[in-house]
Amino acid sequence: MSDPDHIPAAWVAVDWGTSHLRLWPMGADGVPLCRIDSDKGMSSLTADAYEQTLLALLEPYLGSDAVLDVVCCGMAGSRQGWAEAPYAAAPCPPPSFDRATRVATRDARLRVYILPGVKQAVPADVMRGEETQIAGVLANHPEFDGVICLPGTHTKWVSVKAGEITGFATFLSGELFQLVSQHSVLRHTLAPKGWDTAAFEDGCRVGAAAPARLANALFGLRAEALLDDLDPIAARARASGYLLGMEIEALRGEWQGRSVVIVGENEIAQAYATALALQGATAEVTDAEKVTLAGLSAARAKMI
Amino acid sequence: MSDPDHIPAAWVAVDWGTSHLRLWPMGADGVPLCRIDSDKGMSSLTADAYEQTLLALLEPYLGSDAVLDVVCCGMAGSRQGWAEAPYAAAPCPPPSFDRATRVATRDARLRVYILPGVKQAVPADVMRGEETQIAGVLANHPEFDGVICLPGTHTKWVSVKAGEITGFATFLSGELFQLVSQHSVLRHTLAPKGWDTAAFEDGCRVGAAAPARLANALFGLRAEALLDDLDPIAARARASGYLLGMEIEALRGEWQGRSVVIVGENEIAQAYATALALQGATAEVTDAEKVTLAGLSAARAKMI
Repeated sequence: MSDPDHIPAAWVAVDWGTSHLRLWPMGADGVPLCRIDSDKGMSSLTADAYEQTLLALLEPYLGSDAVLDVVCCGMAGSRQGWAEAPYAAAPCPPPSFDRATRVATRDARLRVYILPGVKQAVPADVMRGEETQIAGVLANHPEFDGVICLPGTHTKWVSVKAGEITGFATFLSGELFQLVSQHSVLRHTLAPKGWDTAAFEDGCRVGAAAPARLANALFGLRAEALLDDLDPIAARARASGYLLGMEIEALRGEWQGRSVVIVGENEIAQAYATALALQGATAEVTDAEKVTLAGLSAARAKMI
Repeated sequence: MSDPDHIPAAWVAVDWGTSHLRLWPMGADGVPLCRIDSDKGMSSLTADAYEQTLLALLEPYLGSDAVLDVVCCGMAGSRQGWAEAPYAAAPCPPPSFDRATRVATRDARLRVYILPGVKQAVPADVMRGEETQIAGVLANHPEFDGVICLPGTHTKWVSVKAGEITGFATFLSGELFQLVSQHSVLRHTLAPKGWDTAAFEDGCRVGAAAPARLANALFGLRAEALLDDLDPIAARARASGYLLGMEIEALRGEWQGRSVVIVGENEIAQAYATALALQGATAEVTDAEKVTLAGLSAARAKMI
């Protein structure tokens, strides 16, 4: 995917997250012309900076008079974003174009829509962006019945049946891991990077078997480093295993005997697959970018 | 306890922690002349700064030619402290004077001893300072048979029988709480201070019943704040409850049907007492300063 000069795009798919912005100018054939990555995420923008950000990045893809449809998902639709796109309430299908919020722009060449997130009343939970990835999974597997895991700093587990999001749960295990490894007394005990699969698997087993002992198991890594020179990479993987082992155990009722799809092909997605496999569950790992594009394309298809 | 000028002390009791230093010049009658608090904890000192720190703080209590015994417990005896006082290995009685390390000083008016900490091989764990508080509890109750909880950033639970520390476990729940409330996505959801006992108790119940869901329950506070305007003080107390509820649950085998003593009279000690009471356990809360002094005094009594 090269970066061509002044090739008007048919429309633009946008994933506007908290810290990152990703745009795909789309060709008339439904294939992206390229991908544009930017650090202009929600957290770095005020509401009036969004339009200029889009115009600057999309200049090569704007025609001189044609109107360019821009379909966004993610935090741009939050209260602190560009314009609030009120949540749909689960259980519901992943919100599509009929639930989108049209955002006013000064430049008439842009026609911007933001897809809403999904909220759940009890237990309280929210998502913005992941619902569009769910739509993407469903675009390829309309009959999917199972649970979709979207790993990240805040991992979402989404139960899907008959085309609907029936419920979901967010785990901030990834953030806990970052806090523990960077800011706690363990920061000198855990290596800043590196991986040890056997140590991770040990950690998963401990986390699943004795989740209430998390705070003790973590301190134990520090003590083991002090007394037995525990390897920092093993310590890092074990700590991660404690947290993912707990998470997988907590969700046993969701994944046991059901289809599991993990969205994302990076290391963290692989760690989730490993942790699930330890418990006897097989997950299909699918490409996050592909499902995001499929979800945004499905919404776009309802516009035209 | 006033701060008298030039009253020679009989000896000095010292609790030298990571971030704080506390000294009690003792009268000949075994009663402290006063208490001196300082921020010259281990983490702010190099090994050669300890003696000068003591001299500066103890000047009013030094005789012109007499030798002053100084008995320390805590992190001053760690590898990164003044001089390493090698750990005693549990099961063992709380280390007393016969296990102390004599530290060389340039000033002949000081005779300094550091009491060692205690280590445990499996599961790996360590303490420095708390063992002297255990000695203090035992000084008053030599026949104590039960579990002693020493709350803090890193809470210790110590099993005691027939005058020995039979085993112990450290939980860094307090540090996790600080990280979550100050550095995580929840930092705007949790009030920086304030307390709500009912919310804390709710949190304890959830943490005990579903410990594996910690990372989900924490994110739920953020979602509840977003969707239902959850009160930040209630959110703070609930988060604390999740962590303590887990901890109490993990230790059920230690405290159930046994005597429980909590060392410390501050808010955190009270929170532990509340969390235990919710599970039907009654704990005796005892003053931390008194047991520290009793432990140091018991060691001193073996010297003379």
